[in-house]
Amino acid sequence: MADVYSFGNGQANGNAGMKDILGGKGANLAEMTNLGVPVPPGFTISTQLCIAYLEKGEFPATLRGEVEAAMQRVEAAMGRRFAADVEPLLVSVRSGGKFSMPGMMETILNLGLNHRTARALADESGNARFAFDSYRRLIQMYGSVVYGISGTTGDPFEHALEAVKRDRGVERDIDLAAEDLEALVGTFKEIVRREAGRDFPDDPWEQLWGAIEAVFRSWNGRRAVDYRRVHHIPDDLGTAVNVQAMVFGNVSEDSGTGVAFTRNPSTGTPEVFGEFLVNAQGEDVVAGIRDPQPIAKMRDWLPEVAEEFEGYCRTLEAHYTDVQDLEFTVERRKLYILQTRTGKRTTRAAVRVAVDMVAEGLIDERTAVLRVDPAQLDQLLHPMVDPDAEVTVIARGLPASPGAAVGRAIFDADRAASQAESGEAVILVRRETSPDDFHGMAAARGILTSRGGMTSHAAVVARGMGKCCVAGAKEVDVHELERRFEVNGVTVEEGDWLTLDGSAGRVIVGQTELVEPAPGDDFLRLMSWADQYRRLRVRTNADTPGDAARARDYGAEGIGLCRTEHMFFEGDRIRSMREMILANSEGGRRKALAKLLPMQREDFVGIFRAMDGFPVTIRLLDPPLHEFLPREDDEITELAATLDVSVERLRRTVDTLAETNPMLGHRGCRLGIAYPEITEMQARAILEAACEADEAGVEVHPEVMVPLVGHVEELRHQAGLVRETAEAVFRERGRRVDFLVGTMIEIPRACVTAHEIAQVAEFFSFGTNDLTQTTLGISRDDAGRFLPLYAARGILPEDPFQTLDQAGVGRMVQMAVELGRRASPKLKIGICGEHGGDPRSVAFCHRQGLNYVSCSPFRVPIARLAAAQVALE
Amino acid sequence: MADVYSFGNGQANGNAGMKDILGGKGANLAEMTNLGVPVPPGFTISTQLCIAYLEKGEFPATLRGEVEAAMQRVEAAMGRRFAADVEPLLVSVRSGGKFSMPGMMETILNLGLNHRTARALADESGNARFAFDSYRRLIQMYGSVVYGISGTTGDPFEHALEAVKRDRGVERDIDLAAEDLEALVGTFKEIVRREAGRDFPDDPWEQLWGAIEAVFRSWNGRRAVDYRRVHHIPDDLGTAVNVQAMVFGNVSEDSGTGVAFTRNPSTGTPEVFGEFLVNAQGEDVVAGIRDPQPIAKMRDWLPEVAEEFEGYCRTLEAHYTDVQDLEFTVERRKLYILQTRTGKRTTRAAVRVAVDMVAEGLIDERTAVLRVDPAQLDQLLHPMVDPDAEVTVIARGLPASPGAAVGRAIFDADRAASQAESGEAVILVRRETSPDDFHGMAAARGILTSRGGMTSHAAVVARGMGKCCVAGAKEVDVHELERRFEVNGVTVEEGDWLTLDGSAGRVIVGQTELVEPAPGDDFLRLMSWADQYRRLRVRTNADTPGDAARARDYGAEGIGLCRTEHMFFEGDRIRSMREMILANSEGGRRKALAKLLPMQREDFVGIFRAMDGFPVTIRLLDPPLHEFLPREDDEITELAATLDVSVERLRRTVDTLAETNPMLGHRGCRLGIAYPEITEMQARAILEAACEADEAGVEVHPEVMVPLVGHVEELRHQAGLVRETAEAVFRERGRRVDFLVGTMIEIPRACVTAHEIAQVAEFFSFGTNDLTQTTLGISRDDAGRFLPLYAARGILPEDPFQTLDQAGVGRMVQMAVELGRRASPKLKIGICGEHGGDPRSVAFCHRQGLNYVSCSPFRVPIARLAAAQVALE
Repeated sequence: MADVYSFGNGQANGNAGMKDILGGKGANLAEMTNLGVPVPPGFTISTQLCIAYLEKGEFPATLRGEVEAAMQRVEAAMGRRFAADVEPLLVSVRSGGKFSMPGMMETILNLGLNHRTARALADESGNARFAFDSYRRLIQMYGSVVYGISGTTGDPFEHALEAVKRDRGVERDIDLAAEDLEALVGTFKEIVRREAGRDFPDDPWEQLWGAIEAVFRSWNGRRAVDYRRVHHIPDDLGTAVNVQAMVFGNVSEDSGTGVAFTRNPSTGTPEVFGEFLVNAQGEDVVAGIRDPQPIAKMRDWLPEVAEEFEGYCRTLEAHYTDVQDLEFTVERRKLYILQTRTGKRTTRAAVRVAVDMVAEGLIDERTAVLRVDPAQLDQLLHPMVDPDAEVTVIARGLPASPGAAVGRAIFDADRAASQAESGEAVILVRRETSPDDFHGMAAARGILTSRGGMTSHAAVVARGMGKCCVAGAKEVDVHELERRFEVNGVTVEEGDWLTLDGSAGRVIVGQTELVEPAPGDDFLRLMSWADQYRRLRVRTNADTPGDAARARDYGAEGIGLCRTEHMFFEGDRIRSMREMILANSEGGRRKALAKLLPMQREDFVGIFRAMDGFPVTIRLLDPPLHEFLPREDDEITELAATLDVSVERLRRTVDTLAETNPMLGHRGCRLGIAYPEITEMQARAILEAACEADEAGVEVHPEVMVPLVGHVEELRHQAGLVRETAEAVFRERGRRVDFLVGTMIEIPRACVTAHEIAQVAEFFSFGTNDLTQTTLGISRDDAGRFLPLYAARGILPEDPFQTLDQAGVGRMVQMAVELGRRASPKLKIGICGEHGGDPRSVAFCHRQGLNYVSCSPFRVPIARLAAAQVALE
Repeated sequence: MADVYSFGNGQANGNAGMKDILGGKGANLAEMTNLGVPVPPGFTISTQLCIAYLEKGEFPATLRGEVEAAMQRVEAAMGRRFAADVEPLLVSVRSGGKFSMPGMMETILNLGLNHRTARALADESGNARFAFDSYRRLIQMYGSVVYGISGTTGDPFEHALEAVKRDRGVERDIDLAAEDLEALVGTFKEIVRREAGRDFPDDPWEQLWGAIEAVFRSWNGRRAVDYRRVHHIPDDLGTAVNVQAMVFGNVSEDSGTGVAFTRNPSTGTPEVFGEFLVNAQGEDVVAGIRDPQPIAKMRDWLPEVAEEFEGYCRTLEAHYTDVQDLEFTVERRKLYILQTRTGKRTTRAAVRVAVDMVAEGLIDERTAVLRVDPAQLDQLLHPMVDPDAEVTVIARGLPASPGAAVGRAIFDADRAASQAESGEAVILVRRETSPDDFHGMAAARGILTSRGGMTSHAAVVARGMGKCCVAGAKEVDVHELERRFEVNGVTVEEGDWLTLDGSAGRVIVGQTELVEPAPGDDFLRLMSWADQYRRLRVRTNADTPGDAARARDYGAEGIGLCRTEHMFFEGDRIRSMREMILANSEGGRRKALAKLLPMQREDFVGIFRAMDGFPVTIRLLDPPLHEFLPREDDEITELAATLDVSVERLRRTVDTLAETNPMLGHRGCRLGIAYPEITEMQARAILEAACEADEAGVEVHPEVMVPLVGHVEELRHQAGLVRETAEAVFRERGRRVDFLVGTMIEIPRACVTAHEIAQVAEFFSFGTNDLTQTTLGISRDDAGRFLPLYAARGILPEDPFQTLDQAGVGRMVQMAVELGRRASPKLKIGICGEHGGDPRSVAFCHRQGLNYVSCSPFRVPIARLAAAQVALE
């Protein structure tokens, strides 16, 4: 097999399918050449040769001949000669592996220059400044890439350049004269001699071989190895070397350079979009010294070239069947395309382009579905902080509930509610929220807390309402009584404007422009295609009829998790709940529960109506009872008065219920086993509601879910209570409805004994939030001090609470699915942790053979699209 | 196959091997008969017949003939006739399944009595009182067992009996006259008629068949079914029915009854031990109305019978090769053995008997090793509350550290230390302990706290010291400042005497007699036999040279867990530790750590010396840093002054470090990753100490253990630091020692990714305390509110923190062993959770192929014996 692959003059030995051998860049250059796109000619030395070289430490004997032959083809195509004293050919040398490794790209430009060829270039272009600036850049890049010169106190080349500019009293590189640059060439050569202990090679061929070897060696450099480790790229791929003729957009007024997208990357409008600069090269665009012109103006400058360019845009887009992001240079009216790659775009553009391209016959619907990143759909559904807006971030907290909100800071719930009523936009700021703040949270646009984690009251309630929330912003020092907070030297008083970015956890001072959500028809069309291909059902986590209805608008096919406890936090209910907790006897508890029963039943009727025809999974009471009681002294005093019990007694109850590790404490089915009357009341509320809805013509499919089961006997106990209660309700009402009793799988023990549990459970629903906490032994609320460190050091590159830890938690899930289905082959299995709305986790659920995923309402479209993509892959 | 098995007159159809068919009791009666022991004759109806009867609801046609034939054999042996009006034969009817089900035994005595036979019995014995008392007892038992008469307001038979006694003005049954009893027979029959709606059968045969059917039906009774569920006894075994001739010890002065052990059950002394009562039956012994005489006095009463009895004792003991517990009756000088069973004994007796029996040639050493219950060895090693002492238990807490202690209640550490110095026995009573109380704990005999769990500071430190502790006695209301506590109406002031029972969690007022530990030579001999057979090595959990030396005395073969953090709680060390926590920079932390280094090193040298020749596993810092800081306001103020920082700053640090679920928080290797300098200091202290000890001629085998690893990259990070530090130490000291780096396996994720972790770890040590917490999702400190309930309801019959939950946590262990050994076949694997000292858990570890178990010093003998037993099984 050959080691060197030429491209140029409309012909190439390689193509886009040869990324293994040519690397991504080399394969792409070959592909473009074959398409008749005018790419500066060149050749690629294969990745295999890299591997062989790194093993043996030398090149095969045949390589020199191959490279020289390839160089001759480049010379022929360009009509110039490498190392010639007249019209010299200059080349670039670049690395390029199979996978893009940003920041790992070794690049040497202008290779082939020495004092003779530089002089020839100066004469030819009539621009000595250009020639010697190119020369000094070559030495600088070569010194860095080939000799590894970096200096212990900053880049010595840059120091020398700065010294000359100081000396000449100028600020910009471009203001240096040709003589200054020629002198700098001498200085740079001195630096090479001093730092590398050898002379910069005058011979262009010696330059070339040095560069090739350096690129190959870079594959085993520290930075590259580290990068591959973090990104799981194998070490045995090697990199290719691309040697390509240099072209220059800065040699005349009919030369120039530019970048363009084949369609508008913000809106998706089908028009070439970009900008160009006359008599300039790429770095001038970057330097921003002159303002580039929009691409449409190219027609006024060089109409033929503009037309030719637009033709290539169409060719490349049609060939790659996707939006392309192009770099081009015009050298004396001759157009060169330097690079093409898939164009990055906003979600809005991605959706429009995908739908348009189907209409244009460029791609089919399956491909369109695969073209949009599900994770980005959030942008279409929530208000976002305008990415172009300049903002002052004063603190960061946890991204507890996505979206963005602008409003005036208000420090208590009552005032938040009254201000909101009078039409004011409000951000509720609290140290932490409690059930007493519920009305203020409902009235506010967004919520900011300084304490608590992703599962704190504020976070959970805000997500349930689909309301923006930044929680646990620890630096924010909230003085609730004084109605202000301080953070990093900034003080925010009540009434000051704040912007919250709940998607990123940012706290911003002032009013910031928000981008409002606008899904549109293209989005609906794309989602309808997605629904044809997915096998996973998508449900939602919703606690109220309103949430359920909204989720249904987003395409939810039922409720996977209805958390009954949130129903207990409102108004009268919290009072009855507290009475129950303070009751000394089963009788007292039953009395308080009897008050809650009609309220719960009414909620459930509303939810069944909203989900007419779809299954609704309702989880029995889960949180520890102390979450329903206040903790602070003043709150306890106040509550004691309200409930007419002594402060002493209430405090004793609060103390007794306090737990060292509430996550692993008296909660979930452990409550229902200790207080069967709670389970009975909830089962009764669910089944009475089901009967009522059924009577009203609603199609109901209730699924009662027992939380935190670790042992089959726990489930047997609770399922028995639910089924007995159901029979009693059916007798009383003279009407039966079908229902299921199943369990959350959220404890490792449940996973390894799933075969036992499946003998009692009619469905499993993975609670991967808690399963992640227990499997990893990590409290989500306390992980803030070490998880970021773990991500930074590559120990756990991803937040396991965002994306399912497949090797650990995923293994548990897999085990439970296998054991559960072995015992009960038709077992219905879903997931209702927040991972249900994470695309990669959804894909995992598909591969494990789950029946459905369930996620918050706004994430339903994300899950639908992700489910379709994995089914299509 | 026959359904009825006779025994009597030296011959039986059954034997001890037929428990499946005859039940335990029936098989034993047959076995004794075959041995020539005089058992009252009788017959057993098989368990198979029970099953057949319960399935079909009727008896096979052949049964009646078989029973009548068997009854004739009994009549012949006794020289009496069943249902005869002269010298009538009475029988007992008893249930008896394969497994003993205490409290489930259905018993009817005196069956065969009616008005005629009762009169005959009265005439024959000349004791009408005896005859009618027997008769009324028959009706009472029959009414309960056959008709299920229990009454809604207490036993109606007892009510009637009480009424007669009231009427006659007597207190004891025995004071009623024959006429009263005869009248009572009539009343009892009335009760049967009223409650059961039928007449008590006069016909003895009808009585017999009713009794047999009732016994069979009892197998499916609610209580029996529940019992079997809890004790995992299959439902399809059935029960046998034993029909046996009645004999009476209360018919003359040359009659009597008694119980005896073939050896002394308290001491093991080889002498028949027991007591008897002349002219009495079994229930008279129970009633305690007359004082029984020691068995030795039998020789004075009826020398031939006594000699005969002793002969049977020898026969039975030799036959069963174990101490027997016998019941016997003498009826007119004729001796009957009613029952023999293995005699329960104290541990001291068990050890002596086992060793003696080997010397006597009765059993071999293997059998001796299997004869002692390892769980009971605790009795030999700790002081115990005298089981015969009458005590007033005022509260119960957690059995946090075993043993018992008597002392005066003292409410602060300083006074505890000074009182102890002046020779006073002290019990330190605190709400909870902190590192500041260490000196007081060290000085006290025992420790009582009202807060905290099995892993609280008090519990952990006390176990480390081998000191008795009752923790988390929630009812105890401690007023530290007022120097008293109140509990359930009792007030204990400072200086009052208290007794703590740390093995059972009992708090007792006053001075109680303690039984001092006395292992003795027999114990040592038995343990030496055990050591020959076990395959598991037994190490200890020890944090100090003193603990290590003590454990070695008990046979520990190394340290499986040395918790370095406990070293930080003492005196100066806690100060340096706190300086480290409060340092703002790595530099500040290193400065504080440098002060800790020499102290840690010195500890380790001592431990290596104590464990010369054995491996020592040292765990890196594990607890979250907030455990080293105070929590209460006054303590914070005091500490701020000591450390010369502002109260504000110290409080902020305390607040920042506080965690919602510390068990799942910033601890274990997560600390060492965040603060590598801590790991470096500890690795340095361990390896410098190893070099020093090695230089002094000590054979060292250090094993450095990284805690709380869930991901192989965590271990790679920490192991890298340890190995780099070791190389540095070896270079500095010019000396190398071999060492291992391994990890605790205590997170479910570590179990399912054990194949990855085993590529870096040189050993695994299961931390089954935390692995149980995470696998079950149960915080040990918070489990007190529901685990007892779970035990009571049979959901989790055993405390998973005492005995390893094999189906759940055990499955995790099994997975980790399999995956770990597959990746690294010679991987050394041990366990260092508290399960390492629990006999059933030790057996599990043996079966999983672990290399060693490690437990607290006092549990080392338990583990040695348990390991031998499982190897022998």
